[in-house]
Amino acid sequence: MAGITAVTEQLLCYRLLVPRPRTHDLEQLLDAAEALAVQSGAAAVTVRALSESTAVSNGAIYHAFGSRAGLVGRVWLRAAQRFLTAQREAVEATLDSGRGRDIAVEAVVVAADAPARFALDQPLSGRFLLTVDRSELLGDADLPDDLADELRDLDQALVDLFRTLAHAVWGRTDRQTVEVIRDCVVELPTALLLRGRRTADAAVRERLAAAVRAVLSLDPPGTN
Amino acid sequence: MAGITAVTEQLLCYRLLVPRPRTHDLEQLLDAAEALAVQSGAAAVTVRALSESTAVSNGAIYHAFGSRAGLVGRVWLRAAQRFLTAQREAVEATLDSGRGRDIAVEAVVVAADAPARFALDQPLSGRFLLTVDRSELLGDADLPDDLADELRDLDQALVDLFRTLAHAVWGRTDRQTVEVIRDCVVELPTALLLRGRRTADAAVRERLAAAVRAVLSLDPPGTN
Repeated sequence: MAGITAVTEQLLCYRLLVPRPRTHDLEQLLDAAEALAVQSGAAAVTVRALSESTAVSNGAIYHAFGSRAGLVGRVWLRAAQRFLTAQREAVEATLDSGRGRDIAVEAVVVAADAPARFALDQPLSGRFLLTVDRSELLGDADLPDDLADELRDLDQALVDLFRTLAHAVWGRTDRQTVEVIRDCVVELPTALLLRGRRTADAAVRERLAAAVRAVLSLDPPGTN
Repeated sequence: MAGITAVTEQLLCYRLLVPRPRTHDLEQLLDAAEALAVQSGAAAVTVRALSESTAVSNGAIYHAFGSRAGLVGRVWLRAAQRFLTAQREAVEATLDSGRGRDIAVEAVVVAADAPARFALDQPLSGRFLLTVDRSELLGDADLPDDLADELRDLDQALVDLFRTLAHAVWGRTDRQTVEVIRDCVVELPTALLLRGRRTADAAVRERLAAAVRAVLSLDPPGTN
């Protein structure tokens, strides 16, 4: 018991003594970790490797992220938030550009195309999202609770986007219409853009858009 | 060295003494193993569990399949061959039913729909194919060589089907057209039918057919 208390005190002192990196430095650490993962795989992202590539001490990195899982999770969260922000902004810009069903269908096409555009606009974050399996991340016992909560919040943001799109296309936000939107915005891009690590060239993106428009041209299930 | 020789001799004698099950019995063993995997997961398929569920001895099962990997691989091969046969027959029947581009497009739709039909016609084999990861199977060091070769032959059969379809639709069998067929026959069904363990209801199959027709309506890449 005395031993545990001593260790706890040491940790507390340690956290007080090692300065927490400033926000600007944190972003640079996340940049470096992202680059490391894209270059050498997710397993290469360790606190020691990051310390070596940035000249920030092990202690400061642990202080900032709590654990390796906290570090990798934070990089993932930042990349995923960047992606969802870009996707949502593209959808909103399309919906704001006019009225009617054609505009709504175009908004779904834009949402489906978002991974291809993101890979072009923010290649490092785009490739990082493909190197780390989010379900493994969430399964890690060392993932700080607040980070796990933030990762789960992303799902809600995505479901909100699906509902916005389902409402725009069909004026409905029930399970069945949201499922069709999910097919268009998640399953079809996963199938056509992301599998086989192919580059999202113009022909592939055109195929995806054609498939999305075709699926949306059908009556949604549950329509009599 | 003497020890190893003794073990080898024992194994040889053992293989000579234990009668190899007849073909009829082999099929029943494969049926039982398939049912076991579908019911309780691939990990539940062990020689001991199969012996208990069939009253065939451990020794006879090892004699027939060489190892657990050999047993699981043989079940997988049989299910995959059944699927590919059903798919090829459906494609050939469609191509034989007429001439022209519409028939060719319909043949691709039929090929894409094959997993949904297979799941209805042969539910156990259909579900088994989803419970076992083929790449894990091939990575198993205990997989007999002849079985590994047969599993790899399946890939060639599938590529042959892609080439037949690409030729029917575009009169071309280059890499680019075969890739579009692969998108239609593998990636789109994987995305729309198989992900999320959903049942292949009529609405989902209709979406898949619409997506395939839309992708095929585009000029293939490389067309000037």
